[in-house]
Amino acid sequence: MLSLQSETSARWLSQIDDHLEELLIDHAHCEKKAAGTAMNLIFAYVENEDLCREMVEIVNEELEHFELVLDLLKRRGIRFRRLTPSSYGRKLNDLVRKNEPQRAVDRLLVAGLIEARSCERFDLLSQHVKDSELSEFYGSLFESEARHHSTYVRLAKYFADEATVHQRLEELAAAEAAILAEGDAVVRMHS
Amino acid sequence: MLSLQSETSARWLSQIDDHLEELLIDHAHCEKKAAGTAMNLIFAYVENEDLCREMVEIVNEELEHFELVLDLLKRRGIRFRRLTPSSYGRKLNDLVRKNEPQRAVDRLLVAGLIEARSCERFDLLSQHVKDSELSEFYGSLFESEARHHSTYVRLAKYFADEATVHQRLEELAAAEAAILAEGDAVVRMHS
Repeated sequence: MLSLQSETSARWLSQIDDHLEELLIDHAHCEKKAAGTAMNLIFAYVENEDLCREMVEIVNEELEHFELVLDLLKRRGIRFRRLTPSSYGRKLNDLVRKNEPQRAVDRLLVAGLIEARSCERFDLLSQHVKDSELSEFYGSLFESEARHHSTYVRLAKYFADEATVHQRLEELAAAEAAILAEGDAVVRMHS
Repeated sequence: MLSLQSETSARWLSQIDDHLEELLIDHAHCEKKAAGTAMNLIFAYVENEDLCREMVEIVNEELEHFELVLDLLKRRGIRFRRLTPSSYGRKLNDLVRKNEPQRAVDRLLVAGLIEARSCERFDLLSQHVKDSELSEFYGSLFESEARHHSTYVRLAKYFADEATVHQRLEELAAAEAAILAEGDAVVRMHS
């Protein structure tokens, strides 16, 4: 599904039930980070107009989701605060190669894999969570994450040929699955 | 006007006539940088909800302007490319104090001063430039820059009392005027 090489474990789903508030706070941070990633890609590859325009759209959508999560937190009286992040993002970013154009390919594919995993988990959450407001909310985010995944994979093809992009996507997807299988000290959207 | 302590010199206006294409490219970079600054402020002060929501709005508006400038460049057959920046942004950012909460005050006020200067210059350009499409475009940006200036100054008051904010704004505005008076090796929106 969406290039992912593993399905989210039953362990994660069983963990989140006791951490729904923390998960919601982490979700706000995830939307903010997704917007930040897209913004950084504009700065890095500003001469690629297609990339810039797609990133503008992603920044806008992620920030809109960020505000929606802030609204949810507010309605529930949950104070938005900093959280220790899971190690997922750092471990994935460590896989990004240092030299261009490989660096661009990896940054785009890593961003695309994170969107894919969010997509898979929002779908799971929308089915699993009893709270109907949350369940509907997660369901509403599914489509945009899937679309962002496709956009990132498509844009990677500006920096390498199609076969190379797909081979690297498989390598990174295998690494992504392994990172999640390792587990994490904290319960997060990506742990 | 808008806290600024100098008016743009006749020298700048006389320089830009021969550099309108370069100015337009630089303008796109300015909008991108303004969006990036607002995004960085979300990351730095994420627990201040009012600040986050205002910054989301500013990111959206600046990126919308960024795309409008890209559209203008495209219609005119001007290739968007990297440019050596003027020294204005670096010199202003060098004035930002290192420790919080002074750092927050300075980051917000510097951002507000850059918006104020853009506002003053868009107004001048809208009157000065003969090209009616450009003239109207500059005129259309005036209002949002003025609004962003007020937002930044208002948000600084979360981090210091009103008198302290206004005193620091005067100090930074004096520095901003001095930086522009020094002149620059390149002709830019802020040179």
